[in-house]
Amino acid sequence: MHKYENISQPVIKRLPRYYRFLGELLDKGVTRISSRELSDKMGFTASQIRQDLNCFGGFGQQGYGYAVQSLYNEIGHILGLDHCYKAILIGAGNLGKAVAVHMSFEKRGFKLIGIFDNDPAKVGTVIRNITVTDLDKLEEFCKENKTDVAIFTVPKAAAPSIADRLYQLGIRNYWNFSHYDLSINYDDIIVENVHLNDSLMILCYKISDACDEPEDAQEFRKAD
Amino acid sequence: MHKYENISQPVIKRLPRYYRFLGELLDKGVTRISSRELSDKMGFTASQIRQDLNCFGGFGQQGYGYAVQSLYNEIGHILGLDHCYKAILIGAGNLGKAVAVHMSFEKRGFKLIGIFDNDPAKVGTVIRNITVTDLDKLEEFCKENKTDVAIFTVPKAAAPSIADRLYQLGIRNYWNFSHYDLSINYDDIIVENVHLNDSLMILCYKISDACDEPEDAQEFRKAD
Repeated sequence: MHKYENISQPVIKRLPRYYRFLGELLDKGVTRISSRELSDKMGFTASQIRQDLNCFGGFGQQGYGYAVQSLYNEIGHILGLDHCYKAILIGAGNLGKAVAVHMSFEKRGFKLIGIFDNDPAKVGTVIRNITVTDLDKLEEFCKENKTDVAIFTVPKAAAPSIADRLYQLGIRNYWNFSHYDLSINYDDIIVENVHLNDSLMILCYKISDACDEPEDAQEFRKAD
Repeated sequence: MHKYENISQPVIKRLPRYYRFLGELLDKGVTRISSRELSDKMGFTASQIRQDLNCFGGFGQQGYGYAVQSLYNEIGHILGLDHCYKAILIGAGNLGKAVAVHMSFEKRGFKLIGIFDNDPAKVGTVIRNITVTDLDKLEEFCKENKTDVAIFTVPKAAAPSIADRLYQLGIRNYWNFSHYDLSINYDDIIVENVHLNDSLMILCYKISDACDEPEDAQEFRKAD
């Protein structure tokens, strides 16, 4: 039976947002918060928040609010952030470097253990205390180091052959920034895609649509 | 009255994905496609695709399929990609550089007209044929150049004061990569957020959840 079988997928998708806001409250020393205050901060309605958080037990009490730390811990636990999945990053260009430098992997259930590139100018450089390794050594590295996840920041043209090598090495989990659709080519993998172009198109839609605003656009704009 | 008032927000959110796939078909010289084939490629069901595309007129004919080019053009038009919104990028670090270099702004309704940073080591360097300008000259630049959009790739600590300057300059549209929640501080702006940390947490959930797979997880994994 599933651990949290009452939590629907739309609620799961909102959990990172809750987690982020609760983390900020903790940083400010806030220990309790009402659904009304959370609503003001997050742009969800108070009733939506109560409904969402009730899915996994509900830490709120009427007139008392939510215990920020317990709720934060519980959401982190549901998201699986107490894991330590070993990740390698493939592609040390600007995007790969940005991802390697800026992400709080350890706080998000991951540990970055290797960075690979095939550009001689990048091999040997150090990013986040990790020396960029030649892509030729990928197989050797993965045989010596259990690897759970590949972060895929390679150009589309290079993607298929590298994806194939990763798959052959048994890697089944991907954080995909490339324009290559991994899930269509391998059906037993887990993929989370970051489609920056899609996001840019949605921005374009929001801007061009705002000239001629329908009733629900404001809500849509705030929903992400 | 709204241009495409029959198109729901969930359909709008899926349009970039259609647009992307149709563009790939055009690149391969494909002129017609059935909802069944599109379904195989995209991971949506054929009936979902028919339903989605029917919202704006429906270019499909039974036993004939969709005319790829017309559908591509129409979706581009709905998304507003035939605009040319002038954008400036604030923050020329790794992430800003990656965004400036890799995005196809012109194909997505935008034109990048300026890049700003306050780091003397970055000012004067050239990215995508644009010389990085000192952030001190932001006001001067925006008074001389009509600016519709700010792409916001700055560290959280620097974000509030820069956001305030942009808002004072009349900029109301933002592509926000920072951890600063713009929409909470300004309520008359349009924001599209890219939350990479949220995406990483969802990946963590998908991986940890896969050990104990509920029925709808497979569908969820494929849904983005």
